[in-house]
Amino acid sequence: MQAYKSLEERFARIGSIEDALGILQWDTETMMPQGAADSRSDQLATLKGIAHELLTAPDTGDLLGQAEQDSDHLDEWQRANLREMRRIYLHAAAVPADLVEANSRAVSRAELVWREARQNGDFALLLPHLAQVLSFQQQIGQAKGEALELSPYDALLDSYDPGLRQAAIDPLFAELGAELPVLVREAQERQKRLPAIQPLNGPFPVDDQRRIGEQLMKAVGFDFNQGRLDVSLHPFCGGSTGDVRITTRYSEANFMSALMGVLHETGHALYEQGRPETWRRQPVGLARGMSLHESQSLLIEMQACRSREFVTYLAPLVRETFQGEGPAWSPENLHRILTRVEPGFIRVDADEITYPAHILVRYTLEKALIAGDLLIEDLPSAFNEEIKKLLGLTVPDDSLGCLQDIHWPGGAWGYFPTYTLGAMTAAQLFRAACQADADILPGLEKGDFAPLRSWLRANVHAKGSLMTTDQLVAAATGQPLTAEVFRAHLRERYLTH
Amino acid sequence: MQAYKSLEERFARIGSIEDALGILQWDTETMMPQGAADSRSDQLATLKGIAHELLTAPDTGDLLGQAEQDSDHLDEWQRANLREMRRIYLHAAAVPADLVEANSRAVSRAELVWREARQNGDFALLLPHLAQVLSFQQQIGQAKGEALELSPYDALLDSYDPGLRQAAIDPLFAELGAELPVLVREAQERQKRLPAIQPLNGPFPVDDQRRIGEQLMKAVGFDFNQGRLDVSLHPFCGGSTGDVRITTRYSEANFMSALMGVLHETGHALYEQGRPETWRRQPVGLARGMSLHESQSLLIEMQACRSREFVTYLAPLVRETFQGEGPAWSPENLHRILTRVEPGFIRVDADEITYPAHILVRYTLEKALIAGDLLIEDLPSAFNEEIKKLLGLTVPDDSLGCLQDIHWPGGAWGYFPTYTLGAMTAAQLFRAACQADADILPGLEKGDFAPLRSWLRANVHAKGSLMTTDQLVAAATGQPLTAEVFRAHLRERYLTH
Repeated sequence: MQAYKSLEERFARIGSIEDALGILQWDTETMMPQGAADSRSDQLATLKGIAHELLTAPDTGDLLGQAEQDSDHLDEWQRANLREMRRIYLHAAAVPADLVEANSRAVSRAELVWREARQNGDFALLLPHLAQVLSFQQQIGQAKGEALELSPYDALLDSYDPGLRQAAIDPLFAELGAELPVLVREAQERQKRLPAIQPLNGPFPVDDQRRIGEQLMKAVGFDFNQGRLDVSLHPFCGGSTGDVRITTRYSEANFMSALMGVLHETGHALYEQGRPETWRRQPVGLARGMSLHESQSLLIEMQACRSREFVTYLAPLVRETFQGEGPAWSPENLHRILTRVEPGFIRVDADEITYPAHILVRYTLEKALIAGDLLIEDLPSAFNEEIKKLLGLTVPDDSLGCLQDIHWPGGAWGYFPTYTLGAMTAAQLFRAACQADADILPGLEKGDFAPLRSWLRANVHAKGSLMTTDQLVAAATGQPLTAEVFRAHLRERYLTH
Repeated sequence: MQAYKSLEERFARIGSIEDALGILQWDTETMMPQGAADSRSDQLATLKGIAHELLTAPDTGDLLGQAEQDSDHLDEWQRANLREMRRIYLHAAAVPADLVEANSRAVSRAELVWREARQNGDFALLLPHLAQVLSFQQQIGQAKGEALELSPYDALLDSYDPGLRQAAIDPLFAELGAELPVLVREAQERQKRLPAIQPLNGPFPVDDQRRIGEQLMKAVGFDFNQGRLDVSLHPFCGGSTGDVRITTRYSEANFMSALMGVLHETGHALYEQGRPETWRRQPVGLARGMSLHESQSLLIEMQACRSREFVTYLAPLVRETFQGEGPAWSPENLHRILTRVEPGFIRVDADEITYPAHILVRYTLEKALIAGDLLIEDLPSAFNEEIKKLLGLTVPDDSLGCLQDIHWPGGAWGYFPTYTLGAMTAAQLFRAACQADADILPGLEKGDFAPLRSWLRANVHAKGSLMTTDQLVAAATGQPLTAEVFRAHLRERYLTH
């Protein structure tokens, strides 16, 4: 028990450093004056280094071994906590410090060059830097893979989503990929048959947008006593344990984009605010992984808040807030705006039905790049070919193609698939929730999220990392993750009525 | 050189943690949602603990010894840096970890109880907690005193103001104390002979107050590319290296209080933003001590911004900002508002001339308490007696007496004298600056702080901790710190014209 208790103390300490980092990172995006960037980099690097040193201290491995030998005395949560400690330790200890540092430097440079390359559509400019990041990611995947007995790409996946394997993704994405082009085409044809969507004409004052955003956050269940809403260039959910901070950005021309963004981040925040109270500062109390995290944001944004039920509640609310008039503000028109399908080049602007196509393209390519089956200099043409295949679009310029995302220059390889796995998981969880509690959908019609929230709390949030993602999804929905529920959801929303 | 270089790296790392703490503390006062207090306490305690561990690591003493033996190879700044490292190390290593922790816990409890005790004027409620904090402060003073070869109170003084000793304060404060009651009486008599002060009638919109505050901050020389202005309950200057953040609080009824508060904190900020560029992350690059820090805020607020010259510039500016009309907005009336004398019970509301009386009272009492010459249960009566003696006021209630400040329950013993030493230093520096550069006063009349700022940069800010406070003051003003320049300033401002 002694070894386990020592580990709990050490991980609590690491958790506090991570929490401090969360606030500093939030500050960097929202409050920090530009000239403080260098000083902030020093702070972040120092704290990250200290957390890493604590984690990989010479005796951590011994303590883990002792605690594992003694694990009969631990209860279910403690055992799961110990398992998570081991996993985190293996990931951290697997990569030599000089590789961590070299990768971090390469990423900083590549991100910098990327901003210029994207602006000018100049892939050649980024190429040498991207090649270097890829090489370090291959080495990291290799090193982690050896420690975890996984392929390099599976090891990278495991960093973002513990337990996620290529072998599980491939069939799900293949099924989805086969149907997507048909779905998109049919949804667009149906859209054409309906009367034209009427635009909402602004300007929509930012103060009103913030007010209604906060009002809906509260309705969804965001606890402002333990969190905030602010503005940043790229919206995110961050902060620390007990202090969950989300951001959005406002445009006076279009309130819907910020509002749906706020609801999306509120879904993430609900997960963070609902993590198990007693285990909040331990690994087992953390959110399970990025697929499940994305499932929570998409469940709130896509499943709940773009449902006909919620839009019935939303329409009069926004009409009143922005003093809107005329048929453009009807629930019917609002719902059509919120479910409009339009293939486009930019992933972050994509609708629910074309978004997965963007992910499938990136997944296919990053797998091949990590495995060495695709050369980095061939990325632009391969990217454009895949987009053509899945979305029927001809990419005119790499800034609208393979240069649009920060993930690859930023060293986040193995992250992309979690977006679409999150969408699938959201559909499956939402269906199970609605089947389990008949009050959920009528609640949304009144802006009452309490029934939905309490199902999510019990079945997802409060579980922390007690189970694997697979186990959690199966326990909550009665079956492992399938593509079918998501596909059915898309057909139901975009092809019927 | 190797040992010295290792120390530089270690102290840079500690500096980055301190910087992170600075941002987190700023966030606690300005942004943090209430419910996050516990989680934030964990973060602060963890980072402070890590910084302390790095500082008092077993090999720090050896490295210091080696570097000192080898110090012939160091240049002037490096030698001063090494001297500061030794001083910081002695302070930190002198106090056993369990005493640090026990004191910190006692302080947390006492601060909590203090809020209630102050509200109800209930000294008996605070007494046991205050007694405990005092006891720990005596022990800390004792422990540091042994390591530094100082008396306990001198050791506490040295924590806030390196090199400051009771033997230096006593004669300065005695001289001031003898004159203060006369000065206050004469200033009030003169005030009565003049026409009545005309009040400025609001409301003064907060947005306008913020705008003019920012405008004057820029005029004084605050760099918004490396800093911010925000709102907090208790105004302060904080943040981190290269990211200096000041706060104020606004009242719609009175703009002058927030504006002068902003200028005060801008004085502190100017010092922080002007620390020597190359040494910013090393001990020698830090501000010299609390007396000198306070001298910089008071020099800007009291010496420069309440001068007739600056008020000539200020009056039309505020009249325009707040669309004021009539003789109340004349420079003459504004200057009289800004230099009004009125003995009162509350230190933080005191004017320039009665403020030192509040400090002298606290200095006398805390010296006696630490030395054991005054019993803590006798504090209220002793406090009221001293206030009567220096200000002629009868304290009706301990909430207006010895319960008003957080310093004693907060464990900040030895801090109070730096306020008035700062005021004396400000007067002496300002006079020297004006003598050295004839453009300074005419500059203030045009809102141009550049001449004053460049003198302060060269003679104070950019010196960091290269010299002792005494050396710095003597080098900048041609003489050691005296009470006479401050007394002359008070006589000139409050008794003449």
